[in-house]
Amino acid sequence: MNVVSTSENGSAPVYREIAEEIRGRIRSGQYADGDRLPGENALMERYGIARATARQALSVLTNEGLAVAVRGSGIYVRLFRPLRRHGARRLSKENWGSGRAIWRTDSDTRGYEVEGLIVDEVVPEDHVLRALELPGASRVIRRSRRYLVDGRPVQSAVSHLPRALWEGDEDSESARRVRAHDSGPGGIYARLAEAGHAPARFTEEIRVRMPTPEEARDLTLFPGTPVLEMARTALTDDHRPVEFNEIVMDGSAYVLQYDFDA
Amino acid sequence: MNVVSTSENGSAPVYREIAEEIRGRIRSGQYADGDRLPGENALMERYGIARATARQALSVLTNEGLAVAVRGSGIYVRLFRPLRRHGARRLSKENWGSGRAIWRTDSDTRGYEVEGLIVDEVVPEDHVLRALELPGASRVIRRSRRYLVDGRPVQSAVSHLPRALWEGDEDSESARRVRAHDSGPGGIYARLAEAGHAPARFTEEIRVRMPTPEEARDLTLFPGTPVLEMARTALTDDHRPVEFNEIVMDGSAYVLQYDFDA
Repeated sequence: MNVVSTSENGSAPVYREIAEEIRGRIRSGQYADGDRLPGENALMERYGIARATARQALSVLTNEGLAVAVRGSGIYVRLFRPLRRHGARRLSKENWGSGRAIWRTDSDTRGYEVEGLIVDEVVPEDHVLRALELPGASRVIRRSRRYLVDGRPVQSAVSHLPRALWEGDEDSESARRVRAHDSGPGGIYARLAEAGHAPARFTEEIRVRMPTPEEARDLTLFPGTPVLEMARTALTDDHRPVEFNEIVMDGSAYVLQYDFDA
Repeated sequence: MNVVSTSENGSAPVYREIAEEIRGRIRSGQYADGDRLPGENALMERYGIARATARQALSVLTNEGLAVAVRGSGIYVRLFRPLRRHGARRLSKENWGSGRAIWRTDSDTRGYEVEGLIVDEVVPEDHVLRALELPGASRVIRRSRRYLVDGRPVQSAVSHLPRALWEGDEDSESARRVRAHDSGPGGIYARLAEAGHAPARFTEEIRVRMPTPEEARDLTLFPGTPVLEMARTALTDDHRPVEFNEIVMDGSAYVLQYDFDA
């Protein structure tokens, strides 16, 4: 380990201080959703700063998704409060075991919709087979959909379940439900449990990247908005992967939270 | 909940299939770090596709950080394998309790450096005071630094510790060490434990956004690379926040992994 020491004044640059002040006013409600923020000229006059500094202060807020620039008009407080997604809490057995939808357990009371649900059966891409520890040419039940909050698309998700889990059991209620539009109370995790494959542990992998043109369109992303890509694997207590879910989230719409013990 | 059903062929678009094939060749080592990938013309000829499709296939790989476009030259396999960061495992008490550095516990054997460490004492910004549940004008010990892997800056981190934790105990070894460049075996979590404030639980919040110009420079980010912003709070077993760490990561350099029980 090579520690290089530098000593300098550690205070925040001016543009960050100004951004923090505006941020405080947004959080306190002094600037409300949809309000136009002071522009570069107003900030230059108010704080006695250069145009570049004013621009940087505003870009902090737009980068954070707290404000959005409307070309030729100005910068507006963003009409969307990020969704807080609790990693462990939302997937706890008490939730899906009691028949609740996973989405309902996020600390948010906003209405949501599921749109464009497609259920089909396919031989998936290689990385899906690997994640599910399936041999080549195995078939999976695939559930694809988008989620909307307040009418705004916030994520798309493609869930894969090994078809073999219901081998010889195709007429059961759980086999029928995992292929139905309505997967029933508690969703597919409850159905997996009924079929003897209850998820006991989850692994979530998070990557961040710019969207493909297709994703930008599907999630109606503002230019310059990255996506969060999540790959979730559900495992039984004997470590068998029973679901692999690929989720693409509007990066400006989410705060992910994970709580864990030391 | 409003489920709108659409039925269509659910197979992956051609550009994703081509991207998957090239990705497979990168992962198998057929294309190695630094190799030039086939360009748009080569892909058009090889697969009989349109230029737009070839471009989309390549943009999937650059968006994923598996390849990087060098203007006027071509697209190259990226010379950097993402770091896998295990949320819970790396912060387990067995690690810092046994004197190991947190970084050593990531599943990666690459060398790392800490650069530009600054330790100072300040009254921090309001959101830091809130996170640490401190009254206004409270002072914190602040440790700022960058981490480099294989000489490449991958994250900057600013850790804040309430100064009051060492009130009346300023001459102790742990008080001295949290202000020193070398915080000693096990780092500041071991020092907090020695002072009677052992972290028992962590909360990590993850946001994603485009970098500020300053961050893009400090982390030497390629244009169009988002950052992961992590805010971590360490809590004692009686729920007192004892550290608040703000981390900005090169989004193309990391995969975050969280494992948790159902």
